[in-house]
Formats: sequence, C-alpha cells, structure tokens
Amino acid sequence: MKLLEDRIRRDGKVRAGNILKVDSFLNHQMDIDLFEELGLEFKRRFADCEVSKILTIEASGIGIACIAARYFKVPVVFAKKSKTKNIAGDVYTAKVESFTHGREYEIMVSKDFLGPEDKVLIIDDFLANGNALLGLSKLVEDADATLVGAGIVIEKAFQEGGKLLRQKGLRVESLAIIESMDEINGIIFRRQD
Amino acid sequence: MKLLEDRIRRDGKVRAGNILKVDSFLNHQMDIDLFEELGLEFKRRFADCEVSKILTIEASGIGIACIAARYFKVPVVFAKKSKTKNIAGDVYTAKVESFTHGREYEIMVSKDFLGPEDKVLIIDDFLANGNALLGLSKLVEDADATLVGAGIVIEKAFQEGGKLLRQKGLRVESLAIIESMDEINGIIFRRQD
Repeated sequence: MKLLEDRIRRDGKVRAGNILKVDSFLNHQMDIDLFEELGLEFKRRFADCEVSKILTIEASGIGIACIAARYFKVPVVFAKKSKTKNIAGDVYTAKVESFTHGREYEIMVSKDFLGPEDKVLIIDDFLANGNALLGLSKLVEDADATLVGAGIVIEKAFQEGGKLLRQKGLRVESLAIIESMDEINGIIFRRQD
Repeated sequence: MKLLEDRIRRDGKVRAGNILKVDSFLNHQMDIDLFEELGLEFKRRFADCEVSKILTIEASGIGIACIAARYFKVPVVFAKKSKTKNIAGDVYTAKVESFTHGREYEIMVSKDFLGPEDKVLIIDDFLANGNALLGLSKLVEDADATLVGAGIVIEKAFQEGGKLLRQKGLRVESLAIIESMDEINGIIFRRQD
C-alpha cells in the first residue's frame, strides 16, 4: 500500500536490533486519517470474507482494529495481556513470547465474546516472529470459531512469522511488507500488486 | 446520554466492590456503532473548544478515543503504562494508583507528541477516584500544553474523582454519571440536560 510505505519511509526510524519506530503515527501517536485508509484497505482485501468479529491485542492493535471495524460493521474484541493471576471468570488463554520486551506473557479473551458462530478477522499493527498472531489464532481455535485471516499493518518479512503462518494455511494480508531495513540503506519493501 | 444509560442498564453488571462490568460493549468487546454515537456526543459537548490532540491511556481508552478523534479530526496519543524501567528516550511520566488492580504504576508519553502548542482533550472510559485522569493531567501540564477538558464515558459519582477534578477547575464531561449502584436496586443515573 503506497500511502503507508511512503509514510513509513518519511516518518519511520530504523533502530539497531531490527526495531522500526513508527510511534509518530501508528503505535503511540495515532494518525486517524491514515487509520481510515488502512481500514478501508483491509476491507477491500477481505471483501470476499464474511467477518463477524475483529480480534486484536492490547494496546497498539486496538486503534486500527476499531477504525477498521467501521468498514466491516462488526464489534472488536481485544485480547488482554495478563501479568497477574487474578483472571476472573471463564477465559481462553494463550502464551506469547514478546520480541520487543524479551519476556513471555499470557493473553486472554473472555469466553463470552468468542464462540463457534464467530468468523474472526485478526488485526494487528506488526507481524515479526508471529508469536502474538499465533497466540491470537490459538484463542480463536480454542473457541471453535472460524479464523478467516489476519490483517497486518507492517510485516517484517526478514523475520519468520509471516512465512510460518502462511505455511500453516493462515491467510495473512500485510499492508506493507519490509524485506530488509538498516540505518544505512533504509527500508526495502516487497512489491505487492 | 440516554442511549448509553439504556445500554448500561441492559448489559452492565453490578458486582461487589463497586465494580461495574461493561465488558460486553465498552472495554473488552467494543461496540463500534455505540462508540460512534459516543464520539459524536463528545464532539457536541466540546464543540466550543479548539482541540489539537486527544490523549488517552492504554488499553481501554484507546478505542473510544480513536473513534471520537474522527469527529475532532485530530491525532490520538495514548499514554503507556510502563511496568519496566527501560523507558526509551525523553518522556513525560506520572504515577497512577489503580482502583481496579490495587497497585501503583507509571504512565508515560513521549515528549515528541505533547508540547506547548497542543490543546488537549483527554478521553477515557471510566472516572472513579480520578487517579488516571490526574496522571494524564500532569502529563499535559508537564508538557506546557493546554488541557481543554476531559470526556468520560462512565463516571461513578459515588467516588470522589469527578468532584475533586471539577473543584480543581477541570472541565469534565461524562456521558453517563452513576449516582449509586448495587445488586439489589440496580443503577441510578444522575439526571443530565
């Protein structure tokens, strides 16, 4: 998606350790006009799918998921990251290893909000090693819901997540796919039609 | 706001310890159609204010802030809750005591995204003892930005936060104000014109 790639080139900052800082428009400050364009593009790419619910994960997936949900006309559920043990009530849980924070955490969704009747589209801001997406997929699976696919804003193709998940049969649509990036050569995007 | 009060009466669950569970439409599963109505109402109430930025706090404030931002045509910044010490770069920070979780945490916003030129509207899902709102106000103050007010979805008027913050001169607009609630008598809302 050219609009997004141009924005990443202009405002993204490549940092050591495969970090791409896009916090001026995506995951700390959020450009809602851009989010509307991203939401529309997700709707265009998943136009052939019946979606009954969008699933995302706190915190930085929530904004884009909510704006995208306007075009799908469905509710959003966000998986909570629980550091505590006092999970109240009946929940689906999965373990996720964090790339950015270097630790494992648990994610959870109440059983009230995911069930066999749901056709779930996962939306998230980043796909790198795919651990968050794997965890979210497990929640959908445990709920006996149908996973129609995953819409990702930025995929780092030089990490394994996208490849592994597509090999497992998951439909992954990433609006910008980064083949490589470094502080000298900048960011190289995968050509998408 | 009648639409919201009706929804809280219908789907909200009063629990021991002054807990109101609204996770079926507000802060776990999110009803985006409802959020659009809430966003419009925030815009109506703050129509006389020049707003350049909406500030909220992760995680449950983000969805409503993003939808509201569409009507204000401004970006959203969400304050991050940091449990770790590895805060990168230059940030404003404040300490917040959590009512729900019974512990203290730190919130932070990058100095890049709040500054003296900003006219900030804070948006959050709940106002109870007011600690989150106090912390967010401090971030705005530290940035030398102007705080135009706070838009809250549900205020628990039987806790002190709303009263204290209004006494300090903050303009607080709450779309539903709960005077009292318990499992026997249900929820009593403050009449608003």
